[in-house]
Amino acid sequence: MTDTLSPAVQICRDLIRCPSVTPAEGGALTTLEKLLADAGFDVSRVMFSDENTPNIENLFATIGSGKPHFVFAGHTDVVPVGDEAAWTHGPFDGTIADGMLHGRGTADMKGGVAAFAAAAIDYVKAHPNGIPGQISFLITGDEEGPAINGTVKLLEWAKEQGHVFDACIVGEPTNPDALGDAIKVGRRGSLTGTVKVNGTQGHVAYQHLADNPVPGMLKLLSTVAEVELDQGNERFQPSNLEITTVDVGNTATNVIPAHVMAKFNIRFNDQWSVSSLSQHIEKLLNDAAPEGLDWSIEFAREATDSFLTHDEALIQTLSNSIKTVTGRTPELSTGGGTSDARFIKNYCAVVEFGLVGQTMHKVDEHVAVADIEQLADIYLRFLQDYFQA
Amino acid sequence: MTDTLSPAVQICRDLIRCPSVTPAEGGALTTLEKLLADAGFDVSRVMFSDENTPNIENLFATIGSGKPHFVFAGHTDVVPVGDEAAWTHGPFDGTIADGMLHGRGTADMKGGVAAFAAAAIDYVKAHPNGIPGQISFLITGDEEGPAINGTVKLLEWAKEQGHVFDACIVGEPTNPDALGDAIKVGRRGSLTGTVKVNGTQGHVAYQHLADNPVPGMLKLLSTVAEVELDQGNERFQPSNLEITTVDVGNTATNVIPAHVMAKFNIRFNDQWSVSSLSQHIEKLLNDAAPEGLDWSIEFAREATDSFLTHDEALIQTLSNSIKTVTGRTPELSTGGGTSDARFIKNYCAVVEFGLVGQTMHKVDEHVAVADIEQLADIYLRFLQDYFQA
Ligand SMILES: [Zn+2]
Ligand SMILES: [Zn+2]
Repeated sequence: MTDTLSPAVQICRDLIRCPSVTPAEGGALTTLEKLLADAGFDVSRVMFSDENTPNIENLFATIGSGKPHFVFAGHTDVVPVGDEAAWTHGPFDGTIADGMLHGRGTADMKGGVAAFAAAAIDYVKAHPNGIPGQISFLITGDEEGPAINGTVKLLEWAKEQGHVFDACIVGEPTNPDALGDAIKVGRRGSLTGTVKVNGTQGHVAYQHLADNPVPGMLKLLSTVAEVELDQGNERFQPSNLEITTVDVGNTATNVIPAHVMAKFNIRFNDQWSVSSLSQHIEKLLNDAAPEGLDWSIEFAREATDSFLTHDEALIQTLSNSIKTVTGRTPELSTGGGTSDARFIKNYCAVVEFGLVGQTMHKVDEHVAVADIEQLADIYLRFLQDYFQA
Repeated sequence: MTDTLSPAVQICRDLIRCPSVTPAEGGALTTLEKLLADAGFDVSRVMFSDENTPNIENLFATIGSGKPHFVFAGHTDVVPVGDEAAWTHGPFDGTIADGMLHGRGTADMKGGVAAFAAAAIDYVKAHPNGIPGQISFLITGDEEGPAINGTVKLLEWAKEQGHVFDACIVGEPTNPDALGDAIKVGRRGSLTGTVKVNGTQGHVAYQHLADNPVPGMLKLLSTVAEVELDQGNERFQPSNLEITTVDVGNTATNVIPAHVMAKFNIRFNDQWSVSSLSQHIEKLLNDAAPEGLDWSIEFAREATDSFLTHDEALIQTLSNSIKTVTGRTPELSTGGGTSDARFIKNYCAVVEFGLVGQTMHKVDEHVAVADIEQLADIYLRFLQDYFQA
């Protein structure tokens, strides 16, 4: 069967065999560099460094010129394998069995990278006199790590090189069950808050000399624990708040503690901004705080607003390609966690579409060989339609 | 001035100069042994040991025979000095300045031990043909430590030696402001509970796949946080519950935690027993628990019931002595923390009276020289009245 492997599957298997557990390059970018350079792409390897984070290798490849400029974004780093003995097939062997390609990163997201590489090379080969625009690859080795020396810096770097993108597909696994289930056309925002209440430490037997901060914290947290922020809308789920931790850390059962701290995280839709939501939460807590309670709230600076892609042509072109290949009309989703799309959205219209994500980050991560081939087919049709428009 | 020191103050200063930071004997029991043996007491030094706790020296001294058998209980160990540089006078120097005797343990409770030793020796000297009954000292070096190798074992040991006590004064500092303020005639009980709620861990962006245990815990804790257990009564304060800790320990702001734990401690009066109160709390939590919540409560085995001394003659005799010496009619209190009286109450009637506790366990612990002298006077009058009755 190995001699009949499609180019996309072959590239994916080659990438799986590179043990690129974040932050290691593992040979994955080198494999991609050779492949794209051979196909005529101009490939740059870019290393970024920062304090307290590992140096990270990234890759930018481009071909063609003029508008439109389409960019595919992805990563070749993978999460650790966990208990290697628990894997049915070696996580870096790239074993094909029963129609499935096994290995760490098949779904997230070497499969997506391989499918787009195969599609782009195909498209380029079909245009020996040059493509009608520009195609680029924005590939990082720091998506599963701290994400400091990856996409953010690579976008800045590309901008400095004069690249202006018109549209982007991020190849993350977006389908819950079957290829074609869902395109991500936006993401919820994320806001983390830290609440602190201060009291006065003392002995439980002399509670009148102490001031227990816990009851006040309970009042504050009860207010936000099950708050209904909104009902959601056509494109977004309702916003949701989760209290992620509450900590006193007092080991003495006869001591009233002086402090209690709690954290919460909100995933919120486009009915809120970081600013309006922070203010709303702060007001809720203010209204709930008992008279004289010594409390504070601080919102983490890494908060991100939600976003929704408004490039209907981009969404439609991708949806049509998916429908043609799989027979499915993809849901236009905004659920799930954040991705590098939150950085790319500041540069151009961005949507996300890749493989089925069921086994990502798990033992025995795998994808169907047929899905990789179909994904390459979808990407190819997309490129044809996109540049024809 | 030093040549005019009263015996009680002199003994106290000698004891202060023994650095008996728990569990060290520091020479304190040896000082006491010599003093009491010289006065005719039969002194036993008893060492107790147990797993995972330091060996502890204790002292039992007795004189006379027959009934009534009065026992004075106390400890010579002291809490650590903390920041020694912050002390105005060396914590083990026994400096007297402006009418105050300074040093770690002056209030808690070498002053009480010294005052009773002086009083008992005086009383014995006044009865060269023997006292009308028996006087004993039950002195431990493990009151400020784990309290495993101290009073509990010394009481058992004394019982095995054939000693049956009729009444006891514990010489702990019982006065909030001035000598004569208060006798402790009982103590509240103590009950510690641990509440756990289990949920299902998950990513905050996929909250429908997780089950956050925190909101359920908030419901449980809100129910008990400010519960009114009773109104108190003539002899006891209202029972009081304090939540001492709440802990999740989750450092990942994007993860819904699987577990949350909380502890509370209740100081309760004689309207409850450990058993009735445990049941009451469990029912309150049960009623508050949302349908299907996976939660549990466990009560610590070290729970103690409240107690109230009913020996009115003992209380009256001590009150009268206090009134005669200080002019104050002591409040009959049951407030504050636990003491070794909770163990002694199982052997005989017990009350507590000692010095002013304001500086105990603090930097610059000190007591008035005049208070030590007056306390010795109170104890002496008490012995005279007690054995005359
Ligand atoms: Zn990924
Ligand atoms: Zn004490």
